[in-house]
Amino acid sequence: MNDAYARAGVDISAGNVAVERYRELLGAWRHPDQLEGIGGFGGLFKMPEGRNQALVASTDGVGTKILLAARLERYDGVGRDLVNHCVNDILVVNATPLFFLDYFATGKLQPEVAAAVVAGCARACRSHRCALLGGETAEMPGLYAPGDFDLAGTIVGVVDRDAIPNPQSIVPGDAIVGLPSAGLHTNGYSLARALIPNDELMASFGEGTFADALLAEHRSYYDDVRAIQTVAVVKSMAHITGGGLLENVPRTLPAGVKAVFEQARWKTPPLMSELVRRGALTEHERFRTFNMGVGFTLIVPLADAAKAAAAVRGASIVGWVEARGGDEPQAVVHPSRS
Amino acid sequence: MNDAYARAGVDISAGNVAVERYRELLGAWRHPDQLEGIGGFGGLFKMPEGRNQALVASTDGVGTKILLAARLERYDGVGRDLVNHCVNDILVVNATPLFFLDYFATGKLQPEVAAAVVAGCARACRSHRCALLGGETAEMPGLYAPGDFDLAGTIVGVVDRDAIPNPQSIVPGDAIVGLPSAGLHTNGYSLARALIPNDELMASFGEGTFADALLAEHRSYYDDVRAIQTVAVVKSMAHITGGGLLENVPRTLPAGVKAVFEQARWKTPPLMSELVRRGALTEHERFRTFNMGVGFTLIVPLADAAKAAAAVRGASIVGWVEARGGDEPQAVVHPSRS
Repeated sequence: MNDAYARAGVDISAGNVAVERYRELLGAWRHPDQLEGIGGFGGLFKMPEGRNQALVASTDGVGTKILLAARLERYDGVGRDLVNHCVNDILVVNATPLFFLDYFATGKLQPEVAAAVVAGCARACRSHRCALLGGETAEMPGLYAPGDFDLAGTIVGVVDRDAIPNPQSIVPGDAIVGLPSAGLHTNGYSLARALIPNDELMASFGEGTFADALLAEHRSYYDDVRAIQTVAVVKSMAHITGGGLLENVPRTLPAGVKAVFEQARWKTPPLMSELVRRGALTEHERFRTFNMGVGFTLIVPLADAAKAAAAVRGASIVGWVEARGGDEPQAVVHPSRS
Repeated sequence: MNDAYARAGVDISAGNVAVERYRELLGAWRHPDQLEGIGGFGGLFKMPEGRNQALVASTDGVGTKILLAARLERYDGVGRDLVNHCVNDILVVNATPLFFLDYFATGKLQPEVAAAVVAGCARACRSHRCALLGGETAEMPGLYAPGDFDLAGTIVGVVDRDAIPNPQSIVPGDAIVGLPSAGLHTNGYSLARALIPNDELMASFGEGTFADALLAEHRSYYDDVRAIQTVAVVKSMAHITGGGLLENVPRTLPAGVKAVFEQARWKTPPLMSELVRRGALTEHERFRTFNMGVGFTLIVPLADAAKAAAAVRGASIVGWVEARGGDEPQAVVHPSRS
């Protein structure tokens, strides 16, 4: 009965309904190391007690994919997109997820929408045995248009410091294994939305619609990487997000080498080809904006490369490492001519 | 030179400028336990190696205070608001901050604005010896109106499990010590903005303007609580955020007791009185929406109460604990008649 607040556009009872829904979600599965808190002010998690470990943390959002999800009223995928994105980010340093917290902000809280989004987070957390330790649901009239919302999340994981990949061990001749993306993942949506107008979203494309292709879920590479690590030495990894192969792979290379990719070595998703065609995107634009079909890369010794690629369905050797001259770019793609 | 992306409203070079500014900020001070990462995919922090510890995490935003800050172009305060809010949230379980990550989202990235906001976060982190371990800056045309932005953050701290307060030890007769708020902190802004229209923001109020009073910084109670803990047994704490005294204090009470507050025992800020008057807010509305001058509460044995209150400037005994009948509310305020 907080009438004054309701008049100002904030519905406290909607917030309480959302919290009730979250409780149901969180009751479905609970990480064994999650501890009882006090009044929900902070989430508590048993400290890992190994020696010489590091905590690894990352915050991310899902970008304007969120606007598509809101328009199409498909709410559960973005939560999984977000968690998987965060899992992949800390996987680059070989971290195992411990816990995750979400931030959901909207103009007018619709508890069912919030619950659907958070349910997606909860499901992806559970599949990684990661605690959904907390979160914030904010109703902010005036900042978000009706029906719009934003979603961000923070993941915290753990890694043995001795098991952090060492990019300094990379040498010319090493191979780059690429793991297939499911689509745009969570990057390039501002451009994609400009190239595929709203009135075309439900048009047929491939085996479904443009909407289906655009909302394809950001893949988690956690199991793939763990499988490859059983058969190959992994010297460095990169999660291919905004900036594409051209900007993400160099972040994990020493200065003296460069990555060379050959697009013919992997399958480019039809959605990417369509966007490249519609936007008449230059080679640089397409590989800097989209993942173009490669969602995660691992650098392995040449001798391990075939085993590594064979360990994951759809994976392939997508390029190699070469010595780099002083001012050469650190990533080069030889595009397919198709 | 990513022209296609620029046409879609995303300015990658603005992002790079912002990242450059962040580097300068982060170079100014670095937590000794922050470790070198790989390519910025995740922030690394040395795992504390004590026995029987817990990690404590919380995510929060600054609510629609952000709209006021944007309108008034006062950007640095909201970063401190956010960090201090997060610090207080985990302080409820007695946690010491380890690291923080921010999420800044806007429609069109203005690097100077983003840098000013993140600089506020960095400053507040440093003053708590908390690492600013990472963050995400998202440019989302179409979701945020020009000039608007949202800000959220996640804090992770550590506590010895033996040092977590035990609300079960609370007994009738215990005293409640209140720590003074600096204003609305980060709650109640949707209502406050409805009651104080934009064209009045620069009007004189108290020693400054309404804008000054409204943007007064969310206080951190970290040092206050540590000071009180040297002179008093602290049985329970609450951070008075959205929901006010009426909803936050009960979250940290056992079912058999209730908290009774007497408003005459503390100083109500003039801004609160003005908002109550303008909105003709009922007693329930005002104490559920605003902190009304008490930003943080601690429950201590009566014998320790005077020492506890004397340990912090502006603190006072604001109420006490009573036995509770089965269906009585768990928090009651006797308002001042002034």
